[in-house]
Amino acid sequence: MAEDQKKALEDIFRAGLKAVDPERAIRKYVRCKGDRLFVGECSYSLNRFKRILLIGAGKGTAPMAKALEDILGGRLTNGLIIVKYGHGMPLKKTNIMEAGHPIPDKTGLRATEELLKQVQECTEEDLIICAFSGGGSALLPAPSPPVNLDQKKETTHLLLECGATINEVNAIRKHLSRSKGGWLAKEAYPATLVSLLLSDVIGDRLDVIASGPTVPDESTYSDCIEIIERYDLINRLPKGVVEYFKQGAAGILPETPKGGDPAFSRVQNLIVGNNRGALLAAKEQAISFGYNTFVLSSQIEGEAREVAQVFAAIGKEICQVGLPISAPACILAGGETTVTIQGNGKGGRNQELALACAIAIDGWDRISMLSAGTDGTDGPTDAAGAIVSGLTCKRARQATLDPHAFLLANDSYSFFESLGDLLKTGPTLTNVMDIICMLVEDQKQ
Amino acid sequence: MAEDQKKALEDIFRAGLKAVDPERAIRKYVRCKGDRLFVGECSYSLNRFKRILLIGAGKGTAPMAKALEDILGGRLTNGLIIVKYGHGMPLKKTNIMEAGHPIPDKTGLRATEELLKQVQECTEEDLIICAFSGGGSALLPAPSPPVNLDQKKETTHLLLECGATINEVNAIRKHLSRSKGGWLAKEAYPATLVSLLLSDVIGDRLDVIASGPTVPDESTYSDCIEIIERYDLINRLPKGVVEYFKQGAAGILPETPKGGDPAFSRVQNLIVGNNRGALLAAKEQAISFGYNTFVLSSQIEGEAREVAQVFAAIGKEICQVGLPISAPACILAGGETTVTIQGNGKGGRNQELALACAIAIDGWDRISMLSAGTDGTDGPTDAAGAIVSGLTCKRARQATLDPHAFLLANDSYSFFESLGDLLKTGPTLTNVMDIICMLVEDQKQ
Repeated sequence: MAEDQKKALEDIFRAGLKAVDPERAIRKYVRCKGDRLFVGECSYSLNRFKRILLIGAGKGTAPMAKALEDILGGRLTNGLIIVKYGHGMPLKKTNIMEAGHPIPDKTGLRATEELLKQVQECTEEDLIICAFSGGGSALLPAPSPPVNLDQKKETTHLLLECGATINEVNAIRKHLSRSKGGWLAKEAYPATLVSLLLSDVIGDRLDVIASGPTVPDESTYSDCIEIIERYDLINRLPKGVVEYFKQGAAGILPETPKGGDPAFSRVQNLIVGNNRGALLAAKEQAISFGYNTFVLSSQIEGEAREVAQVFAAIGKEICQVGLPISAPACILAGGETTVTIQGNGKGGRNQELALACAIAIDGWDRISMLSAGTDGTDGPTDAAGAIVSGLTCKRARQATLDPHAFLLANDSYSFFESLGDLLKTGPTLTNVMDIICMLVEDQKQ
Repeated sequence: MAEDQKKALEDIFRAGLKAVDPERAIRKYVRCKGDRLFVGECSYSLNRFKRILLIGAGKGTAPMAKALEDILGGRLTNGLIIVKYGHGMPLKKTNIMEAGHPIPDKTGLRATEELLKQVQECTEEDLIICAFSGGGSALLPAPSPPVNLDQKKETTHLLLECGATINEVNAIRKHLSRSKGGWLAKEAYPATLVSLLLSDVIGDRLDVIASGPTVPDESTYSDCIEIIERYDLINRLPKGVVEYFKQGAAGILPETPKGGDPAFSRVQNLIVGNNRGALLAAKEQAISFGYNTFVLSSQIEGEAREVAQVFAAIGKEICQVGLPISAPACILAGGETTVTIQGNGKGGRNQELALACAIAIDGWDRISMLSAGTDGTDGPTDAAGAIVSGLTCKRARQATLDPHAFLLANDSYSFFESLGDLLKTGPTLTNVMDIICMLVEDQKQ
């Protein structure tokens, strides 16, 4: 691949990243003027509040908190946020606790207890500002007694193993939690609550980001019973968990807060950054480079290697007949694909998608593409993703690497490492899922 | 789903079909004026030829031959075409033989022998007009001695079973044939040959349609040896086949005709109909209905249920933000997906894609879609495909049908049969792979 295409792909990706930088995202939607705090379309008179508390959880929450501290200045009373180990940064008034992710740990439990305690102590005279981002769910563990963290983890594990959908897993999770599924908003009531969300979920569902601590939950204990019956888990789940759900369905335990709960009259939830925002910024960059650009979708799902086929098909069509747009063309998309692991290799969904695409566009030298995670990591690797072109497979064969064999072994990382085609950004401290960018150059190039 | 959306989807699909009707396709590219025969950009003086022979093979070849008989009138000397059982129709000067498809049979063998004989008898003073369409490969069996039909079938079967790519299978097939991979053109030399192709293959590769009887082959006997070594088939293939390839690689057998062969100086290959043509006609129909329409690609491949995810993602993005185009929108695509069968149900790739899409757009009542085979059949069913919408899953649940369970069992036909959402066209006598059409209605609707 020509170096300039590789550079163009990287520049377009980084323009997308920049737009969803957590600090920048907060500053775009939140500002202070005199005693007024503007949050999206709303504004608040800060003089009316006795205290302003800053809380939050998530991988991108530290820079969000930093921006909020800057904006609020001396008005901020204090704060507590929970981030992944190694994701902290110096803050002025906000206590940062680092905890386990993606597997919640005891530090996370203690931090969440402290956070809930501070929220419960708030009154009608207080303003709570929340900053949630991807990973917030694992970083905010608060199992409902008598269920404990291990039982909750086992339950989630069993559900995922038997193929439950993410909506089903979330219904169960929320009903085993004292922080998620709207509970945090309920605990904060009657304080005023502003929740700023950096979305890492398909379709930006408010109740899914960080498992929706400040958002009404639509599921019920009866749904949970149905789900565990559907997957025949009654006798496989920890006994206490099944008993707990039965009590809930019998009306003995309180339901998760629903949309009609008065607590939500004092809650504003606002998405400050999402995949679509990154794509639209990337689009501007691509247009400035002279590419006819379109954004296909910000909610791409599906098996990575199969999704790659569709992108290859679009690229080839542009090469052959200039449809749906003419070259030089840039197709942008985002979302989060999945990988069904069959081999023993090392890789991530973005690297696997890129490898499958490289195979599908083998010989189409006008096409190049990048697939990468906006958080800078892709699977259990140190790469964000990979960059490929119609010449990648040729280069691989020259290095006696068989692209098909690497794909079969889910070994995309080793493949791209050998070719030097990994994209490494390091941790970006943001996370709005993945970005896919395909370029189709003019015939003359 | 509203009946008018269903009707719009069907009308758009049928507009696509009409554009690739074999008779119509031939008439679009072939016409006679005085003694001149115009074929695409070329023309031929018919007075210069002593005889005009019409030959061909494929599921759509009978109506192609009918159109050619009408155009040539009294100038046609005689003809012989091979079609699938039940796909014949009355012709004036052309002998129709019906044979086995997709499994070649002895009738096909005899018919092909006769066809090759007639071609070999042609001289420089003759014009041969060929009409090839999907299925032509199975309908034109002529194994190279000493390999016989059963050995050839076993070889193909073993290759497919061990996951060989379609290019690899084709290389092997062509090297075991006396009709495919350019051999028919070679046999016809020095006659002039015009080959009219109705494309049923991804990317319209001339050498893949009907296995390219009139197109130079790029593969070699050495490639064949490499392929059978790659899949460790040396000891599993029929002994005679391996021996045959070894002789070929040693230069003892003639190679398939390559691009430099003088025979091809007298050959014109012309695609008269393809998936893209159908999509562009469908697009015109959609535009006339008021939809903002774009053609995504005519070469969609991949696992049907995963490809469905991408279409769902595009539809949702249009609903939410009007990207890449605003509603009312129509997204058209074509190609041929695959289904990895895991269950025992009944269905086809189009019905499975539609079912997976219905699940992915559950509740999105502005979205509807159709996926159907242009030949009027989808898998081993009597349906061409199915039509779904964001309300399909709701209707299914009301009828106590679980969409997920049907998808898991590859039982899309039973699902749609119960709901009355199958699309049945009967045999269309054309075949340009599949058409996918998604509609996203305006919010106000």
